[in-house]
Amino acid sequence: MSAEPMIATARWTRALTRSAMQDMLELTARPGLLSMALGLPAAELFPTAGLAVALERVLAEDPRALQYEPPSERLKQHVVALMARRGVQCDASQVFITAGAQQGMNLLGRLLLDPGAAVVVEERAYPGFLQVIEPFEPRILTVPSDLQTGMDVDAVATLLAHGERPALIYAITDGHNPLGVGLSREKRARLVELSRRYGVPILEDDAYGFLTYEEAAPPMRALDAEQVYYIGSFSKLLAPALRVGWMVVPEALRHGLSAIKEATDINTATLAQRAVAAYLDSGALDEHLGLIRREYRARRDQLLRSLTAHFPAAARWSTPSAGMFVWVELAPSVDTLTLLRRAVEQHGVAFVPSAAFAVPGGPRSSHGMRLNFSNPPPARIEEGVARLAAALADR
Amino acid sequence: MSAEPMIATARWTRALTRSAMQDMLELTARPGLLSMALGLPAAELFPTAGLAVALERVLAEDPRALQYEPPSERLKQHVVALMARRGVQCDASQVFITAGAQQGMNLLGRLLLDPGAAVVVEERAYPGFLQVIEPFEPRILTVPSDLQTGMDVDAVATLLAHGERPALIYAITDGHNPLGVGLSREKRARLVELSRRYGVPILEDDAYGFLTYEEAAPPMRALDAEQVYYIGSFSKLLAPALRVGWMVVPEALRHGLSAIKEATDINTATLAQRAVAAYLDSGALDEHLGLIRREYRARRDQLLRSLTAHFPAAARWSTPSAGMFVWVELAPSVDTLTLLRRAVEQHGVAFVPSAAFAVPGGPRSSHGMRLNFSNPPPARIEEGVARLAAALADR
Repeated sequence: MSAEPMIATARWTRALTRSAMQDMLELTARPGLLSMALGLPAAELFPTAGLAVALERVLAEDPRALQYEPPSERLKQHVVALMARRGVQCDASQVFITAGAQQGMNLLGRLLLDPGAAVVVEERAYPGFLQVIEPFEPRILTVPSDLQTGMDVDAVATLLAHGERPALIYAITDGHNPLGVGLSREKRARLVELSRRYGVPILEDDAYGFLTYEEAAPPMRALDAEQVYYIGSFSKLLAPALRVGWMVVPEALRHGLSAIKEATDINTATLAQRAVAAYLDSGALDEHLGLIRREYRARRDQLLRSLTAHFPAAARWSTPSAGMFVWVELAPSVDTLTLLRRAVEQHGVAFVPSAAFAVPGGPRSSHGMRLNFSNPPPARIEEGVARLAAALADR
Repeated sequence: MSAEPMIATARWTRALTRSAMQDMLELTARPGLLSMALGLPAAELFPTAGLAVALERVLAEDPRALQYEPPSERLKQHVVALMARRGVQCDASQVFITAGAQQGMNLLGRLLLDPGAAVVVEERAYPGFLQVIEPFEPRILTVPSDLQTGMDVDAVATLLAHGERPALIYAITDGHNPLGVGLSREKRARLVELSRRYGVPILEDDAYGFLTYEEAAPPMRALDAEQVYYIGSFSKLLAPALRVGWMVVPEALRHGLSAIKEATDINTATLAQRAVAAYLDSGALDEHLGLIRREYRARRDQLLRSLTAHFPAAARWSTPSAGMFVWVELAPSVDTLTLLRRAVEQHGVAFVPSAAFAVPGGPRSSHGMRLNFSNPPPARIEEGVARLAAALADR
């Protein structure tokens, strides 16, 4: 009889649509295209030699390096030290190792969300988080964002004061994806205070938190150890291909998270965990972090200069103090999805249009674009912005 | 106000319970304990040197090895060749790379299951599969198993003939976990025929399929490319700490699986994928596979001899032609959960009691035990069985 695969499409329609968007983005990765689209770190800056030595050492010295093993205690200790650099006090019992930030969000989502749960999300949001919550058919409560100070915390306060009790508030504190903004120090404090007052946890996505180019306020986890569930990653700090990240969460969540993690993929790659720990043992991180901050800061500065030089006077953009992205708002008459096609086909340059970051039920966003500055070298950034300006002028 | 984490416990109660079981198992991993409990490969047989060379080569020669990248085409080609060894014809477009077999089951579960979906599972089942389907609150249809020929396919036929239309049938074809049995050639053909007739896909979990100690019939995927969704893994073939596995699925599923995979953990570690591909490029697999098959076969034989020598006449067990486990049925008066405590505390030996493999709504199982033979060396196997026999005699 029927050999048609029976797919539970209802819940995955949006995921499939978004994947169509992904396909388009992959199309835009065609050779010769100057892409400022994806959120890729610069491969030429990866600490390849240091990681090679770490892997070699672990394989030579550690007979359990290739086995199923509990999460690396050594790595957890390193995470505690890393968090201290961000002004966060925690201990190893609160550190939960993941296969990257995306998995961290998934594990927390599966632990905390019941079907139909309410979730607070900004109007322009990281699509990967929307993918995490989508299977729960959540009620999404959107709040606006400001390009200088981040999430509109007053709007969150209003929702809570009106009786909403969301399962969680999703926030990217530094290097917001896609908005390239940092949450102001005052807003961090206020959001944590709201979280406490109403007993609503904050999922603090800090995937870009170590890529800071100015002095940064500590993440919200520094202000509260019980209500803020912190997500970090080595993907941007070292390299994405290791798939190692972490969470800092109250110990009470650990048991449930372990059960879900085991059901998801048994454990995080022992070899990668121990290689990261060995790399950190070597003390090479400081120099590496200095290098990538310097280099990414230069690329950000180049992008901002190029925008000022080439983009129309009506355009506005964020000035990121962290992360990999600048968000540009063009004149409302510009449709960036249409612009993208022209930019790719006629000018050989790509970006991500704001439509990709719209939230179901939230306002449309047709005239924004996300530009990545971490991946292309400075000279290509200048060239890319000039091409985008030409595509814009083409209308 | 309340700082209590709000956990969606309802759906995770069983996961949490099972994790309590896991805690007990971890307790039983105390130093000096002779454990035949967990399904661990033998760490001393890992191809450590070959993988070290592969990793070194990839890091030295491949500038994209540490970046986010699409799944490795080279690895997919190797999987096609591996599948051909098992008598399966497929092409790279049907190969989907995963972070191991457990993730493969998860991705398929999320794609195929709607809440309340019916699923056919054997009465003694791999707990990791139950964890995968649990969030969907499935209706579990259990069928018995035979220790010589595997799943009772007549029982599946009866369910289907009576109008049940499950979303999928879960089957481990070779090296069944926990039963240590292979599905007979006739049953493979019959199950595939039922799957076709009623349009119900088979999830074929072949995590142990390359650890065969006798000539083996091809997996069910060799009989049908549309209805059988095949799951394989490098965890048992090479090493678990890489977290690389694969599925062979109809191309029609790929788009949906990609979207769910991206939402789950972005992608499978590029470095691990390319290192496995480089290892396979080196041609070292044949020798390695020969080595582990010889060694595991010797350990299996030792376990079977030891059982014959030490265990009571009333005991019955499977004679595995593949995998890592022997299943022992003791006299119905024996409660293996009680036995486990005595075995660990007084005799310093551990196994997994049958209660760990019971299925919700299925029959209880109190007098079975799963014994692992891949991890302990032969001399320890003999000693372990003698200790178990002493614990049994203690009653």
